[in-house]
Amino acid sequence: MRTLSSELTKHIGEKVVVKGWLHKKRLLGGLTFLNIRDRGGLVQLVVKDKDEVEKLRGLQLGTVLSVTGTVVAEPRAPGGAELHDAALEVLMPVEAESPIEIDKPISHKPENLDTLFDYRPIGLRNLQEGKIFKIRSELLRYIREFLYKNEFVEINTPKLVAGAAEGGAEVFKLDYFGKEATLAQSPQLYKQMMVGVFERVFEIAPAFRAELSATTRHVSEVTMLDVEMGFIDGHEDIMNFLQDLVYNTLTRVYAEHGDDLKSLQAPELVLKPEFPHYTMATIHEMFTKETGKDTSKEIDLTPEEEKWICAYAKKHDGCEAVFATGLPESKMKFYHMKGENGTARSADLLFRGIEISTVPQREHRPDVLIAQMKAAGVDPEASGFAAYVSAFKHGLPAHGGFGFGIDRLTEKTIGLANVKEAILFPRDINRLAP
Amino acid sequence: MRTLSSELTKHIGEKVVVKGWLHKKRLLGGLTFLNIRDRGGLVQLVVKDKDEVEKLRGLQLGTVLSVTGTVVAEPRAPGGAELHDAALEVLMPVEAESPIEIDKPISHKPENLDTLFDYRPIGLRNLQEGKIFKIRSELLRYIREFLYKNEFVEINTPKLVAGAAEGGAEVFKLDYFGKEATLAQSPQLYKQMMVGVFERVFEIAPAFRAELSATTRHVSEVTMLDVEMGFIDGHEDIMNFLQDLVYNTLTRVYAEHGDDLKSLQAPELVLKPEFPHYTMATIHEMFTKETGKDTSKEIDLTPEEEKWICAYAKKHDGCEAVFATGLPESKMKFYHMKGENGTARSADLLFRGIEISTVPQREHRPDVLIAQMKAAGVDPEASGFAAYVSAFKHGLPAHGGFGFGIDRLTEKTIGLANVKEAILFPRDINRLAP
Repeated sequence: MRTLSSELTKHIGEKVVVKGWLHKKRLLGGLTFLNIRDRGGLVQLVVKDKDEVEKLRGLQLGTVLSVTGTVVAEPRAPGGAELHDAALEVLMPVEAESPIEIDKPISHKPENLDTLFDYRPIGLRNLQEGKIFKIRSELLRYIREFLYKNEFVEINTPKLVAGAAEGGAEVFKLDYFGKEATLAQSPQLYKQMMVGVFERVFEIAPAFRAELSATTRHVSEVTMLDVEMGFIDGHEDIMNFLQDLVYNTLTRVYAEHGDDLKSLQAPELVLKPEFPHYTMATIHEMFTKETGKDTSKEIDLTPEEEKWICAYAKKHDGCEAVFATGLPESKMKFYHMKGENGTARSADLLFRGIEISTVPQREHRPDVLIAQMKAAGVDPEASGFAAYVSAFKHGLPAHGGFGFGIDRLTEKTIGLANVKEAILFPRDINRLAP
Repeated sequence: MRTLSSELTKHIGEKVVVKGWLHKKRLLGGLTFLNIRDRGGLVQLVVKDKDEVEKLRGLQLGTVLSVTGTVVAEPRAPGGAELHDAALEVLMPVEAESPIEIDKPISHKPENLDTLFDYRPIGLRNLQEGKIFKIRSELLRYIREFLYKNEFVEINTPKLVAGAAEGGAEVFKLDYFGKEATLAQSPQLYKQMMVGVFERVFEIAPAFRAELSATTRHVSEVTMLDVEMGFIDGHEDIMNFLQDLVYNTLTRVYAEHGDDLKSLQAPELVLKPEFPHYTMATIHEMFTKETGKDTSKEIDLTPEEEKWICAYAKKHDGCEAVFATGLPESKMKFYHMKGENGTARSADLLFRGIEISTVPQREHRPDVLIAQMKAAGVDPEASGFAAYVSAFKHGLPAHGGFGFGIDRLTEKTIGLANVKEAILFPRDINRLAP
């Protein structure tokens, strides 16, 4: 029977078997201290026996070990207990020296990121690095649980599609048995069609964009949450739903993983259940007044304004998530619904200095939709769009939804500098492996 | 405030607003009966008022309606109540006639499948059809909950990869900024590398295979569950874990959705917590004896044997899931571990007549792994494999795992004839849309 590091204090005085990786070795006052890593954390061993110490000589970090020893309470040890009289058995020897010092903080400086990603499977053995992806896994769980509670049906839509949903240029193309296929940039069309069936649907899946830019923001494969819901009264319903989802998810991850977030130097969470709303025009006006830089002609918020309004709302409203409303029509996609006075029925959600999601109502009237498609240069009768248009002709209620990147959410939750740090094996213009 | 069909009986005697799609109309003894579909099911309306009946004339099925009426208990109505004195408001008119009769059973005969898939978003409005995908969504939820409970970390691995993991020919290739990329056939290499970090990982994601065959079994995009776990004593640990996962998931879906499964004519579930084991050789022998067809020379179970052993186990062991053990070495992939006497450390799980998963231990000794890669014609130093091999050189414990198709599991749970019926928008050699 194997005992996990996390269960050690339940076995004080008992002889147990621990299995894991050699994580750290040090000599102190004639004793050898070892840390063994398992999925629960670290176990500290104290080795006195000369034969056992001899075995340790030359053992590389990463060596897979089984250790038998007696559990002794020790407040200074990780987890509050350590193993004495430890007898070691090597389960899997390691000859290669670790390319990364896994027991020391790993640099995330821009110049070190390539090394970080090249040695991902080794670097993640560093406990701090691993936490990033445990938190990511938890974010996914919390989001799904919130959606299930709200009667959403999970769907899986195809990633091999006949046309580009958003009509964009940045699509990956491939030969599909002699036809041209593209990799889905989003499940947009599919999730809207499914509103006619289940009213409320979601999907968490990869999405692909052939991003030519090599920046901290551009990756060619992301993990997207996509949500769509029918029978709304306006895009405010969607805004409120997204607000509740984000509030629930973030407060929960801070409540349940506060220590890990703190150790990762994540900023404190400053959030209220109701996020403040500012119109785009107001933000331009306030920003211009404050900084002297005139942004009144901008269609969108500038990156600087995104940062500014989040900081402003954090300070003045006690909430670092904020909605920008009154988005201009010119920001619309063909499947969005127009609002009044040149606005779209839509809003942007900003969090910690960046837009994380857009929450539009969709255009559900088939005649208006078809006109908007044509105006956007999208052929409503093309094979990638025929079923989409047909779903509207057979009755879709007022609906809306949103999508956001799980990578981006993880990055912003933890306070990482680059979205790629929140992706296990990031893909960009220069990186296709590992 | 909208009331859902599922909540109607809580509001007997009250005036409520129901919103949904016109699902069915019929005249009976001077009264008009309407069914309105919402995400919870159906609401029956009784319309007497002449003006209201007049409004109904010409309304197509699928019309989106808001209905105000008084809730009256009526045991014969769906959900046990109906709306009287209903006043209708058309939220979204529909002009097009439905291409599918959504209130009648929809044929799943092979010759009708193309129509079924072409009109998926409409056909799924049939309540029976929709249940298939609600059950699928629930299967996903149960599987994840079981994995979380067992301390698995969810991972998202890239679908754009540099090489084909299994070295196979059936891969989709695409241009990736001037390099050749392939679409991942499975997260095999990535999940194994992650064992070195989290010990236990899973992913549910699309996987791609350029299947040239046009059969009921071949699709080019599937949704795969992939599981990998470290510190096992042998492949029996993996078998037991898969057994528990499948037992838990299936008994739960039958317990919580028994009525839906029954209405879909799903077979009764015959399962025991411990699935019977038969060696491949024994199955060949028993089958040959029973049928007179000599299969002793077969490397694998024949499709006929798969059906036969499941029927046999159902009858003799009271369990329609069964493990075939003692798989021959020749069935091994390069990352599997050899067993004794020409066998692999692996087993197949069969359920309802078909193999749904293979549960091998992996080869975790880097020297043996590299030899097996070379023997399989896979270059351990190719860019798609370098990080994989490196993870072994830095210490991976004994581990194993499995993958199975969520599509296949849904198909077999419900008792559908074709895996495509369990996929929202199936993709095969002839089908890339909708």
